[in-house]
Amino acid sequence: MRPNRPPEPDHALAARLFDILAKETADVAGVTREAFGRGEQFAHDLVAETGREIGLEVSTDAGGNLYLRLPGTGGTGRMILAGSHLDSVPMGGNFDGAAGVLAPLAVAAGWKKAGFALADDLVVVALRAEESNWFPVSYPGSKMALGLLPPETLELKRSDTGRTLRDHMAELGFDPDVIAAGTPQVDKSRIRAFVELHIEQGPTLIGADLPAAVVTGIRGSIRYREARVFGTYAHSGATPRAFRTDAVIGAADLVMRLQADWLRLEAEGRDLTFTAGQFFTDPAQHAFSKIAGEVFVSLDLRSNDPALLEELGPLLEERFAEVEAAHGVRIDPGPRTGSTPALMDPELREAFGSAMEDLDLPRFEMASGAGHDAATFAGAGVPSVMLFVRNANGSHNPDEAMEMDDFECATRLLADGLARIR
Amino acid sequence: MRPNRPPEPDHALAARLFDILAKETADVAGVTREAFGRGEQFAHDLVAETGREIGLEVSTDAGGNLYLRLPGTGGTGRMILAGSHLDSVPMGGNFDGAAGVLAPLAVAAGWKKAGFALADDLVVVALRAEESNWFPVSYPGSKMALGLLPPETLELKRSDTGRTLRDHMAELGFDPDVIAAGTPQVDKSRIRAFVELHIEQGPTLIGADLPAAVVTGIRGSIRYREARVFGTYAHSGATPRAFRTDAVIGAADLVMRLQADWLRLEAEGRDLTFTAGQFFTDPAQHAFSKIAGEVFVSLDLRSNDPALLEELGPLLEERFAEVEAAHGVRIDPGPRTGSTPALMDPELREAFGSAMEDLDLPRFEMASGAGHDAATFAGAGVPSVMLFVRNANGSHNPDEAMEMDDFECATRLLADGLARIR
Repeated sequence: MRPNRPPEPDHALAARLFDILAKETADVAGVTREAFGRGEQFAHDLVAETGREIGLEVSTDAGGNLYLRLPGTGGTGRMILAGSHLDSVPMGGNFDGAAGVLAPLAVAAGWKKAGFALADDLVVVALRAEESNWFPVSYPGSKMALGLLPPETLELKRSDTGRTLRDHMAELGFDPDVIAAGTPQVDKSRIRAFVELHIEQGPTLIGADLPAAVVTGIRGSIRYREARVFGTYAHSGATPRAFRTDAVIGAADLVMRLQADWLRLEAEGRDLTFTAGQFFTDPAQHAFSKIAGEVFVSLDLRSNDPALLEELGPLLEERFAEVEAAHGVRIDPGPRTGSTPALMDPELREAFGSAMEDLDLPRFEMASGAGHDAATFAGAGVPSVMLFVRNANGSHNPDEAMEMDDFECATRLLADGLARIR
Repeated sequence: MRPNRPPEPDHALAARLFDILAKETADVAGVTREAFGRGEQFAHDLVAETGREIGLEVSTDAGGNLYLRLPGTGGTGRMILAGSHLDSVPMGGNFDGAAGVLAPLAVAAGWKKAGFALADDLVVVALRAEESNWFPVSYPGSKMALGLLPPETLELKRSDTGRTLRDHMAELGFDPDVIAAGTPQVDKSRIRAFVELHIEQGPTLIGADLPAAVVTGIRGSIRYREARVFGTYAHSGATPRAFRTDAVIGAADLVMRLQADWLRLEAEGRDLTFTAGQFFTDPAQHAFSKIAGEVFVSLDLRSNDPALLEELGPLLEERFAEVEAAHGVRIDPGPRTGSTPALMDPELREAFGSAMEDLDLPRFEMASGAGHDAATFAGAGVPSVMLFVRNANGSHNPDEAMEMDDFECATRLLADGLARIR
């Protein structure tokens, strides 16, 4: 351990809070922490109460986001935000989101106890409603914090209750009208950095046998969520090849062409994922002995390279045309949606990367394929960075499995990196 | 018209009967003639009554098959069976099956009126329950006629009523116990030929601009009706390619490899169709942003070449292994089923082929991709042949569209060919 390390985080506190959360928000399987509902609110109350006990300055904004401040010693007027979200998907795991709040809370607790502080304020933040299965909108918590939530979003209904975001916010004592007015809840000009720790939702760190990574960027996407390939239903035995337009062949060929594109681009060193997660013939019409006249297929392409995402639009249209020409099918790609990549700040990546080396960890960086609140801050021009913690079995399920040793290691990395931000 | 032609069939009679059937068995769309139900029985009664009016010898066997005999003049003790079925799929078309009964009925009517007969008896036959959506068994009518219906088949339930084949047969006054005993209802040794006319269920004759064809054989098949490709569900954005086992990619690649096999074999001049009519990710688990862990895919390969069907078994297993190796997926092909091709009799093909030429039609032969009662007779060693009539829009739907001009042409071909059988 190097002499310039900041005081040790309070790992025992984080472990204790994870246990309480697991127990008090348990569902039939895993945990359920409904956004603006009982589970999320329990977690917010627990974190706020803990912050007060530790001696942090606790506040809540008009939208319900929670802030725990350890004042800086430098009179800089700046703050470093470190946090994530406390809601979970229904029957999710205990770590997705919560790890990113409890880690900086453990850091602040350890530092407060040791009488240590940064020059800037360190603000542990718990952002609301990150899991979009509750309300069909991305990152309402961070958007509210920055005054960026479109007001009509308040009329979206929660998937389980059917009641609006406005209703749920008001019920918990927050102020949807202030949010609807677009009033920023934090002064963006004063934020030096946004730092979000999160469990990895894929298997890369397990494959690399490493406890943590610094994130290079959050992948953007280009998506056709409901593409359709149309052929002609016909008898499987009685229709010669020359007379067929087979929607399954068209859709399968489209998928394999895009897969080949991925291999080619990957070989060129470019960042990409391609997934056709939903692919189905029409259950009302398909049959074993019938050529399929229609296939629904979802196309999800993600990259942290804005230039590649630009190229993918024309490439997809070219592939659609090729498949139509090759098989006589018709492709209705449906609406195209997407998002731009959120690049992590190079200076912050360097701060956490060098901290990794000082902790005798290999410096390891990777892209985030999933979206996170850090994308809102990065998109708004706030220098942002994320840390990933090794985690088995993915996320959004009861089996997510982060080892506490890895969490402690990543929390220590968080602390050391925070102390390096100038 | 050549001088050796037999008397003209009674085309007006067939047209009148088609109209009555369409009207009296009409459903919300198309016609419904339930096997051993109201619709089929109406058609049987209509044909039997017509046969009696014409002066044919009418009989019904223990299973309900109907026979209309025009006795031969040669004292040969032989008979030529010509017929098909009178049931339809629910909301099907008016011609699938019925055309193959009304054509020889028109022939017999024309001949009877003209005082003409063959040396052999000509027996117009209406076989029961050919459409297997009613009872899940192939060709129960022709099997009953030959004493080949497995007795347990009588306990199968009709898809709409849930009542057994035995029940439905008994209700109409037939004798399921005789059928269960395997007693042949016709003396196979006396059958010179079985001749079945049927609408084409594919577009080949339309493509060739021809009214009719002689069938070379009924394709056999090798089938995996419920193959499954297993991968691992994982986050679409967060899982690098090296860590994926994507069931959609595995299944799409399998389908495209088999499609390539088809192209290759077709180029070698071999008879084949390949269809994956059902292809779907699991609706309970799939998601836009989730790599698919499972795909259901049905595989239907048909050929009239017994040697090729033999080769396809090992070829399929090789493709399964290749796809498993290429993508890390696991393939559970499920049960393999199939049938052997039913080859049409060369001498009968020649009789009808030469009759085509005499009618100034190009001699045109093609395989049948769909199954027909002729397969039962051919499989039992009875020399058999089929004629196809041009028909638009496939079959098993209300839009099947045979032109009456084509039907008359094919009925004339049937008459001329029957008269050439020695």
